[in-house]
Amino acid sequence: MNIDRTAIEAMDNRFRVNFINSLSGFKSANIIGTVDSNQHFNAALFSSVVHIGANPALLGMISRPDSVPRHTLENINNTGHYTINQVSSAIYRQAHHTSARSERHESEFEFGQLTPEFRDGFPAPFVQQSALKIGLVSKEIIPIKSNGTLLIIGEVQTVVIPEQALANCGTIDHQQLDSVCISGLNSYYTTHLLGQLNQAKKDQPVAPLD
Amino acid sequence: MNIDRTAIEAMDNRFRVNFINSLSGFKSANIIGTVDSNQHFNAALFSSVVHIGANPALLGMISRPDSVPRHTLENINNTGHYTINQVSSAIYRQAHHTSARSERHESEFEFGQLTPEFRDGFPAPFVQQSALKIGLVSKEIIPIKSNGTLLIIGEVQTVVIPEQALANCGTIDHQQLDSVCISGLNSYYTTHLLGQLNQAKKDQPVAPLD
Repeated sequence: MNIDRTAIEAMDNRFRVNFINSLSGFKSANIIGTVDSNQHFNAALFSSVVHIGANPALLGMISRPDSVPRHTLENINNTGHYTINQVSSAIYRQAHHTSARSERHESEFEFGQLTPEFRDGFPAPFVQQSALKIGLVSKEIIPIKSNGTLLIIGEVQTVVIPEQALANCGTIDHQQLDSVCISGLNSYYTTHLLGQLNQAKKDQPVAPLD
Repeated sequence: MNIDRTAIEAMDNRFRVNFINSLSGFKSANIIGTVDSNQHFNAALFSSVVHIGANPALLGMISRPDSVPRHTLENINNTGHYTINQVSSAIYRQAHHTSARSERHESEFEFGQLTPEFRDGFPAPFVQQSALKIGLVSKEIIPIKSNGTLLIIGEVQTVVIPEQALANCGTIDHQQLDSVCISGLNSYYTTHLLGQLNQAKKDQPVAPLD
C-alpha cells in the first residue's frame, strides 16, 4: 500500500507516533546515565544512539525538545558527562521502565531496579547490569530547527567491555553480549548472525569475511 | 576490561574503526537512493538512519565529510529528494555491495544487482527489491563541527509498505518484513521478537502489551 504525506498528517496521533518511529528499521537500545548537581541519578532509555566518527571517537543521540524539562539533557548541559550502557535481554524490562515519566528527585535507577555504578573516577553513573558501558564527555549540542530536537555529540572517554566480546578485528560481538534492538516504541528483539561480509569492491562479488 | 581514551587513540586505525562503529549496538540497514543531474542513479548503504520526529515526520542520517566526493550528499544537495529503502535478509549481500567505492558515472544499482524503481512521480529512485520504501524531501543539512560529518534531515513524503506488515497500532512489523540490522561495518543480523511492552509507568511493573 501507498501512504502519502496527506495520509500521514491525517493519522491519529498515537498511530502516527508508532508508525514514524518504526520507519527507520531496528534501533539500538541504550540507557543514558547522568547525575544532577544535587546528586540525583538519572537513567533514561534512548533508541537513537548513532555512530558519528571513529577518530576522534564520537557518538550522537537525539534529545526531544527542551520545551518541557528533559533531565538527561539538563544534566549533560550542566555536568558535561554522561554514560551509554548497552541493554541486554536480561534487563530489557528494567530498561523500558526507565522511559516512564518521573520527577527530578525520583531516580529511574530505583523504580527500574537498576544499580548506579561509579568507576575509575568517572563523574556520571554507569548501569552496573550492562555488560558494555561507555563514558563520554559532551562536545556539541546541536539544535535541529525542523522540530526543536537536539543532536547531542559526545567523545568516548572510557569503555568497559568483557574481553571475550571483543573480536581480533576490533568489532564487538553484540550477539554474545545478548544485546537487544528496538523497533518502534516498545518492541524488543534478540538477534541471530546472518553473515559477516568482506569489504565490498565494485568489481568483485560480495563474499563472507576471510 | 577497561579501554580508556589513550588506548583508543593508540589503536591500529582499522581496529579502531571496527571498535567504535560497534559501540552503539545494533543499527538500522537502509539503502539510500538518489539521482544526479545526468540521470545517473546512486544507491548507498547507510546504517545511521535515525528517528527525528513524528509530526512533522522526520528522519535523519549521518553523511561523512564532503572533503572527498560523496555522491549521495551531492545528489541530495542538488535535487532535494532521496529515498530510504529497508534491507531484508534476501538482499543484504546486494545492499552491502553498494558500499563499495565507485565513480560518479557508475551505478551501485548495477553492480549491486538492485533495480531502480520510479513510482507516483517521485523524482528519486526507490529500490524495487525493498519491501519498505520511503520517499523524502531534504529539510536541513546540519554540519557537525567535531569531525566535519553532516546530519541530513528529511521529511517523509510517501511510504510504500505491504499492508499486512502494518499493525493496528501503527507499528511496522520488521520481523515479518525480514528486515536485518547491522553491527559494526560488516555484520548482518536477523531478529526474533523478545517482547512488546506497555507504555512504562514509574509506579507500575512493566507488562507485556495489552
